[in-house]
Formats: sequence, C-alpha cells, structure tokens
Amino acid sequence: MLLLRPIVRGPWVLQRTPRLVAVAWGSHPQACAAWTPSRTHGTCSPGDGSWRWKVTAMGALLGLGTGLAYGDHRRRAAEAEPKAEATPGVPYPVFTRQEVGQHRSLAERVWVTYGGEVFDITDFVELHPGGKSKILLAAGGALEPFWAMYAVHSQEHVLEILQAYKVGELSPEEQSQPSQGDPYSGDPPRHPALKVNSLKPFNAEPPAELLTENYLTPNQLFFKRNHLPVPAVDPASYRLQLEGPGGRVLALSLPELKRRFPKHEVTVTLQCAGNRRSEMSRVRQVKGLEWGVAAISTARWGGVRLRDVLAHAGYAEEEEAEEQHVCFEGLDKDLSGVAYGASIPYRTAMGREADVLLAYEMNGEELPRDHGYPLRVVVPGVVGARSVKWLGRVSVSREESPSHWQRNDYKGFSPAVDWDTVDFTTAPAIQELPVQSAITEPTPGAAVPPGELTVKGYAWSGGGRGVVRVDVSLDGGRTWRVAELMGEEQRPGRAWAWRLWQLTAPVPPDAAELNIVCKAVDASYNVQPDTVEPIWNLRGVLSNAWHRVRVTVPED
Amino acid sequence: MLLLRPIVRGPWVLQRTPRLVAVAWGSHPQACAAWTPSRTHGTCSPGDGSWRWKVTAMGALLGLGTGLAYGDHRRRAAEAEPKAEATPGVPYPVFTRQEVGQHRSLAERVWVTYGGEVFDITDFVELHPGGKSKILLAAGGALEPFWAMYAVHSQEHVLEILQAYKVGELSPEEQSQPSQGDPYSGDPPRHPALKVNSLKPFNAEPPAELLTENYLTPNQLFFKRNHLPVPAVDPASYRLQLEGPGGRVLALSLPELKRRFPKHEVTVTLQCAGNRRSEMSRVRQVKGLEWGVAAISTARWGGVRLRDVLAHAGYAEEEEAEEQHVCFEGLDKDLSGVAYGASIPYRTAMGREADVLLAYEMNGEELPRDHGYPLRVVVPGVVGARSVKWLGRVSVSREESPSHWQRNDYKGFSPAVDWDTVDFTTAPAIQELPVQSAITEPTPGAAVPPGELTVKGYAWSGGGRGVVRVDVSLDGGRTWRVAELMGEEQRPGRAWAWRLWQLTAPVPPDAAELNIVCKAVDASYNVQPDTVEPIWNLRGVLSNAWHRVRVTVPED
Repeated sequence: MLLLRPIVRGPWVLQRTPRLVAVAWGSHPQACAAWTPSRTHGTCSPGDGSWRWKVTAMGALLGLGTGLAYGDHRRRAAEAEPKAEATPGVPYPVFTRQEVGQHRSLAERVWVTYGGEVFDITDFVELHPGGKSKILLAAGGALEPFWAMYAVHSQEHVLEILQAYKVGELSPEEQSQPSQGDPYSGDPPRHPALKVNSLKPFNAEPPAELLTENYLTPNQLFFKRNHLPVPAVDPASYRLQLEGPGGRVLALSLPELKRRFPKHEVTVTLQCAGNRRSEMSRVRQVKGLEWGVAAISTARWGGVRLRDVLAHAGYAEEEEAEEQHVCFEGLDKDLSGVAYGASIPYRTAMGREADVLLAYEMNGEELPRDHGYPLRVVVPGVVGARSVKWLGRVSVSREESPSHWQRNDYKGFSPAVDWDTVDFTTAPAIQELPVQSAITEPTPGAAVPPGELTVKGYAWSGGGRGVVRVDVSLDGGRTWRVAELMGEEQRPGRAWAWRLWQLTAPVPPDAAELNIVCKAVDASYNVQPDTVEPIWNLRGVLSNAWHRVRVTVPED
Repeated sequence: MLLLRPIVRGPWVLQRTPRLVAVAWGSHPQACAAWTPSRTHGTCSPGDGSWRWKVTAMGALLGLGTGLAYGDHRRRAAEAEPKAEATPGVPYPVFTRQEVGQHRSLAERVWVTYGGEVFDITDFVELHPGGKSKILLAAGGALEPFWAMYAVHSQEHVLEILQAYKVGELSPEEQSQPSQGDPYSGDPPRHPALKVNSLKPFNAEPPAELLTENYLTPNQLFFKRNHLPVPAVDPASYRLQLEGPGGRVLALSLPELKRRFPKHEVTVTLQCAGNRRSEMSRVRQVKGLEWGVAAISTARWGGVRLRDVLAHAGYAEEEEAEEQHVCFEGLDKDLSGVAYGASIPYRTAMGREADVLLAYEMNGEELPRDHGYPLRVVVPGVVGARSVKWLGRVSVSREESPSHWQRNDYKGFSPAVDWDTVDFTTAPAIQELPVQSAITEPTPGAAVPPGELTVKGYAWSGGGRGVVRVDVSLDGGRTWRVAELMGEEQRPGRAWAWRLWQLTAPVPPDAAELNIVCKAVDASYNVQPDTVEPIWNLRGVLSNAWHRVRVTVPED
C-alpha cells in the first residue's frame, strides 16, 4: 500500500472545484481539492495555520462495499461550492495519538491517522460510500487496519480524497507505542474496529454491521473471548500433553501432530454463551460482559481430528465410554497458576459426526495468538467456552473438567434463581447451544430511507442442526416474511456454520418507525422464544429471544 | 352417514352468492349455492336442462388430508360472482352408472355419484383440499367407498358443497349397488376412555388427566394415529420385505427376525406432529385433526435394532451413506393400493446412538393391532409419523420416501404461508421434534381449592435431548417456579422418553383465577416459544408454545 509521508504541499493556491479526476499522483502529490481555513484542533505547533481542508467530493475512506460510486462523486464534486484559498508554505501542526483519539465523534470532529499524517474527515463522514457507521469505526485512530481489511481503499484516488482533509502530522516518537508492564503486556495487538467489552482479559466483538459482510469472519474481526492473559508459546518447544487410558502421557510436538494425523478442514461458527447478554441485562442486572449481537463468528478451521488423536492414544469408540468426558487444559493461567479448562462429553469427541478439531489454522492462516496459537480445540455446535485455546493437555475422565468455567459457570438457570439461591450442581454445563439469530443491519436507531429496506443478519443453531428458515417482521412480530438464506450448504446433522440471511421488503408507507424482528427455525424445528424476560438468568447466558431493532423512517 | 336421496329441488329460485354456511340440511335439502346453466355434457336424457352447477365455494369431497380449511372456503365462497338463475320445477335428467362411468377425466368432465344422485365435479377438482389426484380416484364412480375411508367428509357442509354440483339422478334400478363394505369394519375395538378425533381412520388421544398417571402409558390408552384402515395381518404368513444394496429382497418371517437379531428394549415417547393443534386452530383455522395435549405417549418397546437388520442386509455404517434415506412402507393401503410410507435419514437409522427399533412388543405385550401388529418401526426422538406401523417393506434410497406424508405433509412453514402460497418442496420433512411440555392437571376451567395446588404435566424433546428443567407459573408467566422432574434417568444424547413433572405451590390468596403456564428447557437449552401466533402454520403442526391452563379459585 502506498505510504503518504512526508507530504509537501504545493506552492500554489487551489481554487474552485476539486480536480479529483485529472490530477496525477506522484512523489510530490499536489492537494487537489478546494479548501478553507477552519478552527484550531488539539495542540498545534507555533505558527501553524490550523487548517482544515474541506471538500464535498465523495470518495471512500472506509467503504465496506465492493466498489465506489465515483460517477456520483464526480457529479457532486462538480456541484460543490467554490472554496476559499489555502495559505501555502506553512508547516502542518504536530499531534499526539492521544490528541487524535479525542476526536471520535461528529461533535468532537472526526480525526483519523494514516501513516504519519492526521486528517479531519468530519465533513466526509456523510459522503462515505460504505456508510456513516462504518467510517466512524476508525474515528480517533488509524485507518490502516481498516484499509488492510478492505482492499477497495488501495486506490490512488482514495488517497487523493483523503489528502484533502489533512490537518496535521504525528510526531516521530508517536510511531511506536511503549509496552505496558502487566500480565497483559504480552497480549497481541488488536484490530481497532473491535468493540472492546473488557481490555484485561481481552474481550471484544466486531461491529454488528461488519460481522455479516463476510461469510467467513476475517481473523482480525473474529470475536475474542479471553479469560486470562494470552500466553506466549514457543512453537519449537511446544508439546501437547496427551494422557492415554492408563495414565501414560504422550508429548506431541506440532510437527508430529501434523505428520501423524490427516489434516481436516471444517467451517465452524463459534458463539460465546454470553452473546446478546446486553439485551438480558436490560431486563434485570446480570453478571457478565456486556456483549452485543456479535460474540459469534465463523472461520474455516484446519487441524487434526480429536478422535484420531484420542484413538492414537488408545481410546476406543466404545459405547461404554459414553458417560466419560474429554478434558482440555489451556496454557493460559491465572496468577495462582490455575489454567483455563473445560470438557466435552466423550460421545461429542468420538462420535462419527463430531468433527472436533485440534486446530492450527484459521481461515488458511496460522492460528492468531488471540485465537489460541499454536493449537486450540474447536468443538462444532457447542458453546465457545469448550473450545479451549492454547491447548496444553488432553485427558479422559469419568468426571467433567474440574475447572471453574465447567462447574460453576456457563450453566443456565430459571429466571426464579438468584445469587442467593443458585446451586450450580443442579444445572448441566452448557454444551450444545439453542437456535439463534440476530439482525446486523440496520443497526438500532438508524434512519432508514422510505421505499425498500434490506435487513441482514445471521442465524445458527447448536448440535449440527441446520437453519431451515428465518422469519423477519417489520411490525414487531405481527406479520412475517421469509428471509433469503445464504452461505455454505449445510450437511444434515453436521451444520456447524451459520447461515447469513437477508430480506428486502417495502417500508410501509406512513411508517415513522419500524420495529424489526427476526426469529430462526432449526432442523429440529426448534424456534427462538418471543421475549427475553422468561429466559433471563443470573449469568445472562443463552440470550436467544427474537432480536428486535427499532429504526426510524424520516419523512421524505 | 347421512344419505341424500332422492333430492327434490325447491320451488324457488336461487340468486347471488352461495349460502353454504347458513342453510339447514334436512330430508328435503335445498340447493344452497348460486348456479348457472351451462353446456350439456355426456349423454343426457331427453328434456333435461343440461345444467352444470357452478360454484366457486371450496370444500372437500375426497380429501386425504386430515381436515378442511373451511374458513378459507367460506371466504372464497362469499367472494364468488353472483350467478344466473335456475329454472325451478324442471326434473333432473336420469343417468345410468355406465353413463356416469364415461366421465373419468377433466377432458370428459368428472362425474361422481352419491346415493342416487349424479354430480359433475369438474370445476371442483382443482379446489379439492386433499389434492386433485385423490379426488380423481373417484371419477366416474361412487363417492361412498372413499368417504367411508375418510370420515372428514361426514359433515353437513361437505354435502352442501356437493349438492351445488348436481347434474342428474340415477335410475331407480341403478340405485341399489352391491355394498362396498366398510373398509374400517375390520378395525379392532378401542378403549372407551379415548377421546376420538376421527373414527375412520381412527385417531384418538387419552384424557389429559389420565395421560400422566403412569410413566409408561398403558397400551389401551396410548394415543392412536391411523391414516388408513387397520390391516389384518396373518403372523404366520407375514414376511418383512428387506431390500438389500443390490436390490435383492430378503423376506424375513417373525420367528426369523426374533432368532437372527438380539432383542433390545427401549423406552420411547412418540408424539404426533399435530399434538396440541387445537391451540393453533384457535389462532387461525388450520387443516388437521383437533388434537389436544395428549397426542403423545410413552411405552417400553421391544424388538430388533434396525441397524442390525440393515447390516444383515449388507448396509454399512459408512459415512458416505449419510445423504441416503431408509424408507418404510406399511401394509395399510388406501383404495388405490397406495400404502402409508415414510423415511428417515440413513444416519438416524445407522447411528450408534439411534436405537431405532423394529418392534414387536409394547410394554411387554404383543404389539396391539392399532399400534402396528405384528411389526412396526419405532424411531426415538423423531415425529411419530416416521414410526411406520404394520411394517411391510424396508429399503434404502438416495431419495426420501415418495409418500404423500413424507413429501407433502408433516412439514413446518412460516405463519406467512397459506394454502395459496405453500410450496412443500421448500421445507424439510419433520424429523426431530422441538422441545415440548404441557399441563395435564388441573384441566382448563377446573375449580381448584384455595391453599396448595399441585400442577402436573409432561415434558419431552426430540433428538435424544433430555429435559433439564420445567418452569411453572401461576400468574401467566410473570413469576416462575421450578418443577420437580420424575421418571427414568435420561442417558445423554439418548433421552428418548419424556419426564413427568409436578409442582406444588401455594395458591395466591385472593386470586379468583389462575393462569397456569409451563415451559420446558432441553439439553441443548432450547426453550418453548412464548406464544402460538408466531409459530402458527397452515397444517397446525409443531405446536409447542408455552402451555396455558386457566382455572378458577372459588371463594372459601
């Protein structure tokens, strides 16, 4: 990707309409849009002109669409008001990243960085072909991670448009961030688009409207649910500890795993038990992270089958083992040395159709550190909490994993049960999840134009049960339409991945507000419950009521 | 059954829209739909008026479905064009049976007889709720044998609809036909406690309050869902036709089956897809039998495992067979010789945990005739319709069973889909059923004493998913209590049988009425939906919303 620094402003004065089309872009690019002086933002260097470049040209800075409507941009640009003149020869002000970070909304003005430069893109926000909500994801931070994700931005004219908004530069020492001295200091960098629910441990989800842009969630946007600091694992010395039937432990290196067992690839949706918890906490206080609708993501995982590995260790497919459990221990540990752990029923691990992987690849890439590098479990159809990352040890036991997260967490209770009366031994550990769906577009509170509306979302169910139908209502559930399902074909009983769906329907004339609702039906014809209250539970898990999104319809 | 001969037309003139609903039917029934003269069809007696009765009212003459969507018929009838006037006082033409027999297709026009009357039902063929192909089975002949098979026709409004199509009468000497014999005359006697929904074919459920008196439902009270007359099978000459991979057919006698394969016993709950349909039809008219909450029962079944039998025939447990289907054909046949049939996915039949039986015992007794004597399929965790009774043939196919009941019935649709828009190819055949529960005591409208109240019911889920919790509310769902679960221990993934449950709770003082509600949670944490409306579907299947029972609390 083209880097843009340092930029030397041309010695001449720009006037009237932008010449986006005609201007050649070279080593000394020339600002090519009309501009006007504006108010000062942040701490500026002495003598700076405090410019803010203003164009009405449209372009794409963060567009997630697959292209740009430049014909339209050009027409609008040609219609733009003539702008005032710039003052040539004056150096740009210098900002810190923290200062840039204070400009995250239209009210504070929207700043972004690209390379070493700072841009005030406030006036461009409404013009963004990918939509206002998408471009605002980058507000106060760097554009690169977003542009890296959406290659449409790697075009010269996009850089030209950006250049018109330049308001300053970053100081050289701001190019590298100092590390922090805490247990989480070794955590990997994360994509800035993620909505962070907890920084330490790191828990974050992608914005809903990005989630369903891709059937396979890009690794950087895949929701992250860490319980502890990310361990630093040396792949050369890494050994998977595999406990055999007699207690004998096999130590398998990564190359050994890859050599001994055939590679399998499976597309699997993982969902956090707490996905959509925020809707539950609106009913009554719950204990847990405030997940939105995007603590769910899908990847193509590559690795070895757990059942092959267990068979190698000496475990059989016998029925008498059905009451046993396969226990996993992570390499992520708390300060007292206790590792994250979980277990799944033996039959889930050894069943012919289970497809449980010990995965070392995610969407064709090496497993990212946040997702369990170098080896993790992926249990299809089952709550994410059992897909233990940074896998250290596998064993088989008559008991479930003794882990806190297996025994005293991730269980469902009646709405009648509170923290005074809860008894975790009375409920089974969540394994297969119930049928789920949510609306990702439009987002709550959005203003949708009259005419036609396209509603998008995802649907999924646990246990390999496919999604057979998604019903969508624009009137709060009074009337329904059947959405179009998209995504990979689902194998009966092994439908491990979600379906994306969309519905395009006329906006009822004279509607000032729409109450959009979706509900899915899975292969066992289970459906989502109508409302949140009756499934409320003190941990805020299993939140799968109809998803409701209210939007407004402005008058023409 | 009401007989309709001879019919004397009234002396008055019919005008405008049909009065299908309001007209009383007596010994001198009056034609009750608008009509119009039409062209002559067939060979008519001299002096006949060559009428063809034309109505747009819909009804069922030969419907093979289990009920009629009369609300819709009436609406359409009401919208029908006003018709021209009939000529009163003119006698009907007289036909021979041979003449009637010349009208067997739409091209020749379709005539039928009922009693001593002749009807031209050509214009009704497309409107027949049971389908065009079924009604055409009677073309050119008498309706009685078909109506004897499908007792749904024994309703006054069906006769009213038929009357509108009258074109003539049979000559007196033609009116005594050798009796067709009642195909149901060989059906076995039934227990008088059963609540009969349909006599021919026999469909009945036990009273709710008897249902949960026993964990294993006594054979005589087990709900009965027949689609056709009960066949009389001679156990000595009985052979199960078992089609092997190459098409070779093995014929297995009962002693051979019992000798060759180990006996297995499994406790399995069977549930009709239409259980609790009556709650759905209260929302909006549906097509189907008016089942209450007791089209579900549990028995200890004894027999051989289907997978053992299939393995004997040469079928393997291979994964590549996963897209195939195991097809069952019953010995119960309709008048055209078509047998009841159904299929299940190969993986359901051959899976290690499937436990599908070819059963010859029910609760330790020989299989009763109503339940499939001498051999039936029992598919645990799956809708009852696939547990084919009086099993005649087993085969494996790349296609599902071609049976009407597999392809064009027993499927779930969106509430948005009606009989004008339904496309049966768009929905999967129901196999695993969703989580279900219902209250069996107290019964609706009961007066319960103040003090303590005990509520009883059942809960079950498909696919071997156990019931992990039942919540009960006495106040319509505002507050909940957790019920006590009873019954056999459930094996994980193989929980084929229901749990009975009960809750004893204080009746709120000053309550004049209680709105008792129950809802169950299964092992995948799926729950029942809150309300019926959003899961309403035109066939009234999969009715599993919260069950609600209102009772009164008389003052002390």
